[in-house]
Amino acid sequence: MLNSDRNRMKLNSDKWFSEVYPDDGCALSLELSEKLYEEQTPWQKLEVYQTTKFGNLMLLDGCVMLTGRDNFIYHEMMTHPALCMHSAPKKVLIIGGGDCGCLREVLKHPIVKNVHQVDLDERVTWASEKYFPELCESNNDPRAILSFTDGVVFIEQAAGNSYDVIIVDSVDPVGQAARLYSEEFYRACYSSLSENGILVAQSESPLFHRDLIKSMQTRMADAGFNDVTTLFFPQCTYPSGWWSASMAFKGSKPLNYRTVDFNTEYYNNDIHLAAQAVPQFLR
Amino acid sequence: MLNSDRNRMKLNSDKWFSEVYPDDGCALSLELSEKLYEEQTPWQKLEVYQTTKFGNLMLLDGCVMLTGRDNFIYHEMMTHPALCMHSAPKKVLIIGGGDCGCLREVLKHPIVKNVHQVDLDERVTWASEKYFPELCESNNDPRAILSFTDGVVFIEQAAGNSYDVIIVDSVDPVGQAARLYSEEFYRACYSSLSENGILVAQSESPLFHRDLIKSMQTRMADAGFNDVTTLFFPQCTYPSGWWSASMAFKGSKPLNYRTVDFNTEYYNNDIHLAAQAVPQFLR
Repeated sequence: MLNSDRNRMKLNSDKWFSEVYPDDGCALSLELSEKLYEEQTPWQKLEVYQTTKFGNLMLLDGCVMLTGRDNFIYHEMMTHPALCMHSAPKKVLIIGGGDCGCLREVLKHPIVKNVHQVDLDERVTWASEKYFPELCESNNDPRAILSFTDGVVFIEQAAGNSYDVIIVDSVDPVGQAARLYSEEFYRACYSSLSENGILVAQSESPLFHRDLIKSMQTRMADAGFNDVTTLFFPQCTYPSGWWSASMAFKGSKPLNYRTVDFNTEYYNNDIHLAAQAVPQFLR
Repeated sequence: MLNSDRNRMKLNSDKWFSEVYPDDGCALSLELSEKLYEEQTPWQKLEVYQTTKFGNLMLLDGCVMLTGRDNFIYHEMMTHPALCMHSAPKKVLIIGGGDCGCLREVLKHPIVKNVHQVDLDERVTWASEKYFPELCESNNDPRAILSFTDGVVFIEQAAGNSYDVIIVDSVDPVGQAARLYSEEFYRACYSSLSENGILVAQSESPLFHRDLIKSMQTRMADAGFNDVTTLFFPQCTYPSGWWSASMAFKGSKPLNYRTVDFNTEYYNNDIHLAAQAVPQFLR
């Protein structure tokens, strides 16, 4: 057992990266072994570190974007539940997702014909290819198209009936990214989805951001979606260690879902259903 | 967005308590507003702080025992699933659990006739009554007995058929508490349980302590239990933010469970089933 004084001293060294969540009076720290990269891109400060126990770590503007150790849960839960609930998810759009982890998971589904990934910042994908090559192993899949442009403008200009599933893998609703959480944006997604299309968007922490989850659900419904469901899952290196993704259905919420026939680390049939259980305080 | 340098500075002040998880290269910090209490009990160092966003915080030997904000998930998941799966949980034993949070949840079940809480350290209960009075609101329930003695010795001396449900709400498997994770201890629990008795024990983080969960399941089976199930749930202020409790069934694992008819904050029928879904990497 460590006493708190010893702990405080340890965090005071250059060996630790800490992300403070000021609105919730807590912080997560990761022990670093080496700084691998730093760049001020046109959009944000991008840093990559090697950690002692979490594999490589990517920061954007000082916030944990992903670690090698625990990103599998997030990327699997952002993709497989929605793709498995759509009867034929042939055309998929990813807005954000520059680390390519969602792209890799989507391309595991043989039924997918093409995936368009639209992220603002090309440098994130460059850094992911260099420091998280396992996430980028499908970037050269002929079904994948990578564009680097503004996702909001992109979706507003998209034709109707363009996509079966849209995945919004964005950073927190702060600054530029706040537009990705607006009713207007959801309305544009609705228009570009095919008849029984599904939208899935990361929706922050159930413990810390309950109001955001509720307002996202309301905005999705107001944008015309027929039904909304939130998925809950652990995510160690995001605020509170507990995360969510909210799904919106253009048609009825499907009762059935396909079973995946490829390897996953977190997702399976039982998790598909379990992730939809709503804790009492969120009802 | 905060940059990492600013974050580091913040954690370097006296305003933060940090718990380092050295084996996993990470740490959780909570922002403090005031120190409320400190004592070296005969067993451990006990500290209580007021935090800015997590209510009161109790530390034992520098490790987070509970916070006012998020203990509800742990206490509900340590009690309601097991109690709801037993057809008639009249006699309940809690080993550890000195903060009385499990005791309060158990006593919400009208079917319970008596609960015996056995914790080594009376000072934990004293501090909980003073600084977490909401957890201790049922301590004077006539069905409750509080004893302060060694739980391992207690269970070894218990008569057979004494309890319908045994809840092991212990600290991490380090030092004295390691005995609460042994096959010998589970064997003693088995003996003191009634015919279809259920044992439930906290079993640490699925992400960090996968080997412990597996070995607990093995030891429970080796001790004679007929079936074993692990429950998974978020727990923000414990290592990795993701926690588990392992249940062992003396008889067959019940297929049905009772619905609770009292207020809960996390637990409900959907969560009861969802918590049993096993992530792919733990299969």
